[in-house]
Amino acid sequence: MSALEELDVAECERLLRRGVFGRIVLVAGGRPEIVPVTYTTHGDAVWVRTSPGSLLDRYADGEPVLLEIDHVDHERGHGWSVVARGHGERVPEGERSDAERRTSGPPRWVRREDEVWIQLRWEELTGRRTGSGWDLAAGLPVDRIGR
Amino acid sequence: MSALEELDVAECERLLRRGVFGRIVLVAGGRPEIVPVTYTTHGDAVWVRTSPGSLLDRYADGEPVLLEIDHVDHERGHGWSVVARGHGERVPEGERSDAERRTSGPPRWVRREDEVWIQLRWEELTGRRTGSGWDLAAGLPVDRIGR
Repeated sequence: MSALEELDVAECERLLRRGVFGRIVLVAGGRPEIVPVTYTTHGDAVWVRTSPGSLLDRYADGEPVLLEIDHVDHERGHGWSVVARGHGERVPEGERSDAERRTSGPPRWVRREDEVWIQLRWEELTGRRTGSGWDLAAGLPVDRIGR
Repeated sequence: MSALEELDVAECERLLRRGVFGRIVLVAGGRPEIVPVTYTTHGDAVWVRTSPGSLLDRYADGEPVLLEIDHVDHERGHGWSVVARGHGERVPEGERSDAERRTSGPPRWVRREDEVWIQLRWEELTGRRTGSGWDLAAGLPVDRIGR
């Protein structure tokens, strides 16, 4: 068992930019909701895809939302978590096309039609870890596939 | 790429009861918040520990909260997620002692003093998966350590 330690902003940003999977958390009708997503970063924003009429499409635009990513090593009983907080924003068509030309976008794990893109420009990055003496990025997929 | 499929309640419950790590999501002052936790199930409730004055201690009692667990296989680009929705409830001292005698409680990954226990009696269990032909429980720690 170890203490909980804060991660500095640079470390949070490094982990956020290297990850591809996380969870968007938002408030829908006064209730908490969570949506697992694949994401990409574009500038200082997280971009995700969603379907028209989804929770993200209906409740994220202009509202406080966050993205959480984490990695846990069950055998050793330690892990880390990073949270990017900001407001959700529906990506306008023009800006989206521009970004699509420059990035590959979030990984596509799910077949989906008629996509809506939501961005979260982060206003605050916070993170915590338990344990020390291990590489926090080791659990991220981009490391595992050698990128 | 595959379609997103709903998990039935029995499968959600099976995964929930076998997991030990998840994320509590709640609303704090109108804003969404997420708290990574280790948990245990006790009857039809999720039990977690927290510290006095924490987000969970201040904002979960009597309010709508959820626990989300998931597992992702980055190489194959698939995964599952289960969400238990209900209301948070501070566990009374007497009930807590009783449960402590009968269960080992959530795994302790973090050193903490003066604990508060919060329970979430689930009112709704939902889950989703991508892909098929793989064992959803294979990513859970209780399998990996042979329990």
